Amino acid sequence: MTTEITAPTQTKIVLGSNQYGKSEVRLVKITRDTERHQIQDLNVTSQLHGDFSAAHQDGDNSRVVATDTQKNTVYGLARNGVGAIEEFLVQLGEHFTGEFDWITGGRWAAQQFFWDRINDHDHAFSQNKSEVRTAVLEIDAQGKKSIVAGLEDLTVLKSTGSEFHGFPRDKYTTLKETTDRILATDVTARWRYTDQAIAEGIDFDGVYASVRNLLLTQFAQTHSYALQQTMFQMGQAVLEAHPEIAEIKMSLPNKHHFLVDLDVFGQDNPNEVFFAADRPYGLIEATITREGTEENHPIWANIPAFI
Amino acid sequence: MTTEITAPTQTKIVLGSNQYGKSEVRLVKITRDTERHQIQDLNVTSQLHGDFSAAHQDGDNSRVVATDTQKNTVYGLARNGVGAIEEFLVQLGEHFTGEFDWITGGRWAAQQFFWDRINDHDHAFSQNKSEVRTAVLEIDAQGKKSIVAGLEDLTVLKSTGSEFHGFPRDKYTTLKETTDRILATDVTARWRYTDQAIAEGIDFDGVYASVRNLLLTQFAQTHSYALQQTMFQMGQAVLEAHPEIAEIKMSLPNKHHFLVDLDVFGQDNPNEVFFAADRPYGLIEATITREGTEENHPIWANIPAFI
Amino acid sequence: MTTEITAPTQTKIVLGSNQYGKSEVRLVKITRDTERHQIQDLNVTSQLHGDFSAAHQDGDNSRVVATDTQKNTVYGLARNGVGAIEEFLVQLGEHFTGEFDWITGGRWAAQQFFWDRINDHDHAFSQNKSEVRTAVLEIDAQGKKSIVAGLEDLTVLKSTGSEFHGFPRDKYTTLKETTDRILATDVTARWRYTDQAIAEGIDFDGVYASVRNLLLTQFAQTHSYALQQTMFQMGQAVLEAHPEIAEIKMSLPNKHHFLVDLDVFGQDNPNEVFFAADRPYGLIEATITREGTEENHPIWANIPAFI
Amino acid sequence: MTTEITAPTQTKIVLGSNQYGKSEVRLVKITRDTERHQIQDLNVTSQLHGDFSAAHQDGDNSRVVATDTQKNTVYGLARNGVGAIEEFLVQLGEHFTGEFDWITGGRWAAQQFFWDRINDHDHAFSQNKSEVRTAVLEIDAQGKKSIVAGLEDLTVLKSTGSEFHGFPRDKYTTLKETTDRILATDVTARWRYTDQAIAEGIDFDGVYASVRNLLLTQFAQTHSYALQQTMFQMGQAVLEAHPEIAEIKMSLPNKHHFLVDLDVFGQDNPNEVFFAADRPYGLIEATITREGTEENHPIWANIPAFI
Repeated sequence: MTTEITAPTQTKIVLGSNQYGKSEVRLVKITRDTERHQIQDLNVTSQLHGDFSAAHQDGDNSRVVATDTQKNTVYGLARNGVGAIEEFLVQLGEHFTGEFDWITGGRWAAQQFFWDRINDHDHAFSQNKSEVRTAVLEIDAQGKKSIVAGLEDLTVLKSTGSEFHGFPRDKYTTLKETTDRILATDVTARWRYTDQAIAEGIDFDGVYASVRNLLLTQFAQTHSYALQQTMFQMGQAVLEAHPEIAEIKMSLPNKHHFLVDLDVFGQDNPNEVFFAADRPYGLIEATITREGTEENHPIWANIPAFI
Repeated sequence: MTTEITAPTQTKIVLGSNQYGKSEVRLVKITRDTERHQIQDLNVTSQLHGDFSAAHQDGDNSRVVATDTQKNTVYGLARNGVGAIEEFLVQLGEHFTGEFDWITGGRWAAQQFFWDRINDHDHAFSQNKSEVRTAVLEIDAQGKKSIVAGLEDLTVLKSTGSEFHGFPRDKYTTLKETTDRILATDVTARWRYTDQAIAEGIDFDGVYASVRNLLLTQFAQTHSYALQQTMFQMGQAVLEAHPEIAEIKMSLPNKHHFLVDLDVFGQDNPNEVFFAADRPYGLIEATITREGTEENHPIWANIPAFI
Repeated sequence: MTTEITAPTQTKIVLGSNQYGKSEVRLVKITRDTERHQIQDLNVTSQLHGDFSAAHQDGDNSRVVATDTQKNTVYGLARNGVGAIEEFLVQLGEHFTGEFDWITGGRWAAQQFFWDRINDHDHAFSQNKSEVRTAVLEIDAQGKKSIVAGLEDLTVLKSTGSEFHGFPRDKYTTLKETTDRILATDVTARWRYTDQAIAEGIDFDGVYASVRNLLLTQFAQTHSYALQQTMFQMGQAVLEAHPEIAEIKMSLPNKHHFLVDLDVFGQDNPNEVFFAADRPYGLIEATITREGTEENHPIWANIPAFI
Repeated sequence: MTTEITAPTQTKIVLGSNQYGKSEVRLVKITRDTERHQIQDLNVTSQLHGDFSAAHQDGDNSRVVATDTQKNTVYGLARNGVGAIEEFLVQLGEHFTGEFDWITGGRWAAQQFFWDRINDHDHAFSQNKSEVRTAVLEIDAQGKKSIVAGLEDLTVLKSTGSEFHGFPRDKYTTLKETTDRILATDVTARWRYTDQAIAEGIDFDGVYASVRNLLLTQFAQTHSYALQQTMFQMGQAVLEAHPEIAEIKMSLPNKHHFLVDLDVFGQDNPNEVFFAADRPYGLIEATITREGTEENHPIWANIPAFI
């Protein structure tokens, strides 16, 4: 095993950016200090950053904190309490960067699944699958923490109050204009907290609940002329209400509901009977931000594709 | 193309039971006779029974009501209102058996997806993914209707109140006995209505809501010594409350939550930190029925595997 | 806990048919008696039959062979060799019915995933995902073994040589007749071996390979007038060649490929450009059997829905 | 609707980076100029870049080329031939940036699914699901084209020739060192072509076949001390052989196969019987690049998460 290879182009082949860790550690934490149990149901991923070139180039694992160790650490730290998922990620990140001096940073992420009490029972729950809460913490080589919170799989629909017209037409344009259509999407939203807010402390659970409510409310209240416009209204409402948020990104599929042509069967169809299509779907993505906010913050490079 | 083939064993090869149709017709029906819209979101399957041997053996389609026609019929009939999904399936079944004299029966099935209003809005909804409602109608060659209703993907968990001990041990048995474990499952339940109830009329939506509630309540209230016992209690409660139900079948995965051994890290773990496993999982299935009820009612042969 | 409940209808509520076990035990068995390793990659399910009423009605687990024990047994028996998956299921079934006298039978099932050697390497493989092999063994209360073998997820397509016309038309019929369409399906086939063949011994791997080849060959060679007809030809070829097979069932989605209307863009489209749709899809299902063969053999009741 | 909002922090809320289009257009193209048909099976996504602030902020769609139009264009352009998927994406990109002067660039992506001939038949195929080919084209605001090609879902396994030891131990480390384990992964690889190669022309299909072969061969041949090391060898081999490739990124789950402890059953287990786990899994990701190559090329920001 050698670390320098002369390629045909005479340039050296080198290891670029890299990370490794354990993905999708399924953690269920029951808090049972009283009869009334609390449940936290998480899917946690830990990825470490540092100089791992010896492992890549020589198979030398002396700096490779085993992914199994990372998994164990998730469970060990959870014993002492989880808190908001962002707080748990910070615990994890500080542990690894503190415990191993060659770990210069990393990326820690979690999904949280929600549960409702069954009839207000103390220890019986049914899963509320309406959405998944997400969070990503990145600690960079200077030790700076960046945090992106979010939600995904929140499916919403308006049965009226949505128009789409005035779009340009060319020879490939066959879509009819409409002043009344179904608008439906699965909301994926991710918002980045400001450095100042992270330094001062954030009520992560409180902001989550507020953002979720704002997204739903704006979706419902906006009379829509384009999904782009609805999306911007949703993001704007979040930024207006939450100075602790620097920017928000959304990725919204336009889940098409096609009006079925019943004319041929001798029936009218005044926006009552629709075919809900699977694919293809529109895909509308944007960042809503504040003037002067850094573009392309590095944490986004390591989060599933958004522009 | 010939219809008689002499196989090596000298027995004639023939067409046995068969059906065909259109699967997973995605129908969204908006009822908008007032400002306050109603949404019904269905996935409908239509399969026809009859003598289709000419199509199979000679490629003669003169009796093959196109699956595209079946799809169109779903949309056409929906224009006049859907009602309970069982009622919509009856509309479909009566249409096909009435319209084409060689269609002697069939199987019609639906899934229903639920939506909640966003802040009690008139026409904005968010999807409630906590469970899926199901129904199957079968019309046999004598015109008799059988109906199975059900639900699936209802995920529940108890964080205590579940024991498992007293099981036999052999050389392959390593499981420890426990008096306190997490019990979690995804409920799939299917109940068959009695012929009498079908003849007299059923409040399908009302029974659905009641059965759902009984399943949840019994799951929560039963102190469990085995998932089998919890399941039986759930089924029994349904049959006790609903004379219109002849029998109920359940298929319950035992979704294992393994207590993580934190001893090696110098920590205790008093049923607080669990690993939620994917596979393998236990699978507990049973019919809870009334004495004297027909076993192996034919409709079950055409419903995804349950004993 | 009581076992007799008086329901409103005055009939006793009782436990009907039931089974339980461990599902989806992921087993990878490497045979490494030479440098040239063999790999067997299975997903095994074990479900036991017997009188488990005490567990259901009283939470008495003295007859409940733990599902964890069933999982362990899968691994323990695999140590001695797996063989054809049907043979491994027989090992499992005979073990449980022999080891525990109250286990009167059961259902054991497996999926097998295939691997190809990378460049004929001795111990490096790439997964061949073209299809999944399946098998189900049922042992009934009399100790009789029934075996169904099969395959699933074998996706095939003909780009011509498929017609569809001559079907009946009613007011909901808008489909145009065609003498040239794409025919595509995901083959799920399940064939039941005769009792005689099971008694005399079957070359399970050999028959599997032959059936797979016959299904593919017939799909390719049949000029199709209906998917029903193609399916019957496929099944007939299998029964003609294999007297050890009593009957074969197939479930074939008609995966629609719609010709895109390019006229509006000023282009022709002589069966070149297609939209591959997801849902809805046709679904064609049948049993191809031999005259005199038992209908509704009990093993089918416990296999995912086929008519 | 207004475009300037004063947020509590007194900064203007503005639209940041954004894109929209049609996702997952399922295109099957049959080339039938001879009896021997060719099939191309693609999943195409088109996303446009430009100044769409009017749509977001005012619901003004005069610059919003409808996603339906984008879908139609995929089919219309396919009529004239598809070629390598990268070439088809270039056709799409040049069409949109040429046809609409406010479309300054975009992102076009495709997945390609493979088919094998059944017995060398002229028009009957079976799907080869062993991997999916991918490509992404980005045209930036200066009209510069960047291309990333790739593959995903290529599942490979070595049954020996893999060690893992020498890793650091802390109190959370319980993993045993091993000199013989199963190494398995699903290869996702994406490689970016150099600007020079794009300008001079690339044999996309030829390079794809070569890269695929190199990845498989290196995986098989490398005696592995860590998945990181295997990954680096795979990437290095690709860069050595292909000067037209600037860098390659890989994301490799370490799909754990745990040796089952059969001791308790009185059996040995010399690396023969394994449990294939689902989650959690290791996740190893890196860029292998050439010295001097631009880090964080902008195209990566819009490709599912890789570091």
